[in-house]
Amino acid sequence: MKNTVINLVKRPNITITPDIFEQTSIETAPLEAGQFLVKQTHMSLDPAMRGWMNEDRGSYIPPVELGDVMRSSGVGKVVESNNEDFPVDTQVMGMFGWQEYAVCAADTAKAIPSEIPPEAVLSVLALPGITAHQGLFGVLKPKSGETIVVSGAAGSVGSLVGQMAKLEGLKVIGVAGSEDKCNWLKEIGFDEAINYKTDDIDKAVAAAAPDGIDCYFENTGGAIQHAVFANMNAFGRIAVCGMIGDYNTDKPSVGPNWMNIIKKRLMIQGFTMPDHRAEWPAMTQKMAGYLMQGKIQYRCHILDGLESAIEGINLLFSGGNNGKLIVKL
Amino acid sequence: MKNTVINLVKRPNITITPDIFEQTSIETAPLEAGQFLVKQTHMSLDPAMRGWMNEDRGSYIPPVELGDVMRSSGVGKVVESNNEDFPVDTQVMGMFGWQEYAVCAADTAKAIPSEIPPEAVLSVLALPGITAHQGLFGVLKPKSGETIVVSGAAGSVGSLVGQMAKLEGLKVIGVAGSEDKCNWLKEIGFDEAINYKTDDIDKAVAAAAPDGIDCYFENTGGAIQHAVFANMNAFGRIAVCGMIGDYNTDKPSVGPNWMNIIKKRLMIQGFTMPDHRAEWPAMTQKMAGYLMQGKIQYRCHILDGLESAIEGINLLFSGGNNGKLIVKL
Repeated sequence: MKNTVINLVKRPNITITPDIFEQTSIETAPLEAGQFLVKQTHMSLDPAMRGWMNEDRGSYIPPVELGDVMRSSGVGKVVESNNEDFPVDTQVMGMFGWQEYAVCAADTAKAIPSEIPPEAVLSVLALPGITAHQGLFGVLKPKSGETIVVSGAAGSVGSLVGQMAKLEGLKVIGVAGSEDKCNWLKEIGFDEAINYKTDDIDKAVAAAAPDGIDCYFENTGGAIQHAVFANMNAFGRIAVCGMIGDYNTDKPSVGPNWMNIIKKRLMIQGFTMPDHRAEWPAMTQKMAGYLMQGKIQYRCHILDGLESAIEGINLLFSGGNNGKLIVKL
Repeated sequence: MKNTVINLVKRPNITITPDIFEQTSIETAPLEAGQFLVKQTHMSLDPAMRGWMNEDRGSYIPPVELGDVMRSSGVGKVVESNNEDFPVDTQVMGMFGWQEYAVCAADTAKAIPSEIPPEAVLSVLALPGITAHQGLFGVLKPKSGETIVVSGAAGSVGSLVGQMAKLEGLKVIGVAGSEDKCNWLKEIGFDEAINYKTDDIDKAVAAAAPDGIDCYFENTGGAIQHAVFANMNAFGRIAVCGMIGDYNTDKPSVGPNWMNIIKKRLMIQGFTMPDHRAEWPAMTQKMAGYLMQGKIQYRCHILDGLESAIEGINLLFSGGNNGKLIVKL
């Protein structure tokens, strides 16, 4: 099968520019025993991908090698199969990469009931869902009545964290970068939404959390981090999931002074999902439950065509996307 | 009984100056039923006392009120008693404050076998010992074969942390502020000792920990914090005990950017001892065991006379003390 693929051919120099990718056309490899061919229909663009492009071998997963297909998760349909557990037309998800077709085996794709729309798979069940679940329940361990702040709250992970925290009985404060995003956060049940681009972030955080902050789900870094950090309560917990404000810069923002960590006995924990592979199925199942019961809302920002990923990924760093960024192939 | 006391009468303006204290003489209150009078013989000066002088009601314990005796721990002997469990001549420890005599009851003093010298009580069993124990075992949970860095390593807490970590089979790196201190660290079993005043701290830390750092016991903040943070291994743990480099300044040092927290899945935890009161007796007992078995060395820097505390406490912040700072009354 003729397969259009987009390879990473250069490391980005701070921001992502089109010249770091190369689009080519190759033939898919013939299927071996147990393998099946997936035609990708929807491809996820996630902030973590920025890190995978760096030549950084000390990070939590190896970088994408130059010349390799750019790494990403996606949803597709089986179109040819040498595996009876994955017959033609099965809907599957997996790390398919920036390409039309992927040759998979049972350990590189997971069957998904076809009732679940591909957009929901990528928005709620895939990386965003398990990341939100792990950060909230595995790290923050929220208690009813507590206050949580979520930065990057209108993003795919943040919006799930806030909604699940609300279900647990917390007061939920979201920080996002536009009026439209803030309005959506209120619609899906956030108690407070702060627009960091127009509000005085220090004052707005203090005003939204008059009883202080018990849990912070960190997606952004920068001024939001400092404002939340200064308002943490005793025994507060911080889950460090992302630093999207710092991904595309060569001048990382400074962190807050650590005195507050002592005074408030704070616990700060970084986490990444490859460490929790064993728990993925259980977390995915729980997210599917929320979805089926209508307890979780999501919205998608759909780009059209494989090559739209090349420019489109930058929407994640400018905040230009409204909802989970997905490329429809 | 005529009692010389030193009260805190002003909040310090950055550094501690003699005018914030006032020495007076009062009569001790008559003993009520169950009470006993302690003549303090040795008084502890600890970095945490700097925080207690501030008007900071959001911290882990209330500030010393203006006009009150300055708060401190000490060792003394019972000289008058209305409590048969604390007969005259019993050696006791407690939060006696900056004064010659303290009226105590069973809940404010603890009997200590008279075989244990008062210097050892204050250096190993009291606040330094339980703080070192909690930070090492309660927060860092070290594993044999790992590498730990201790800042403020020649201080009362740091020297105990390093020695206990060595007993647990770790590679132990201490950071201190003089050649004399570094030599002493090597004498008591530290594998490496870095003089942050003369060494290039970034290079020295990287060279001392070629396999990276798994545990960091943080007493200082500043450049040492940044150097250690940059060399943390995946799943590293940081116990934040003190920030002595920042106690006497109105310009707190900036913290490191948090990206490394994600990449290395670091856990950073602040702790203070009032939260762990229930565990104090067990920790004290364990420290006494180390002491009796000769597994723990300590050294003291003795000042002479109650009023020597007023100027002497600043040795803790200049690093001028060699060993546990104790005032002998």
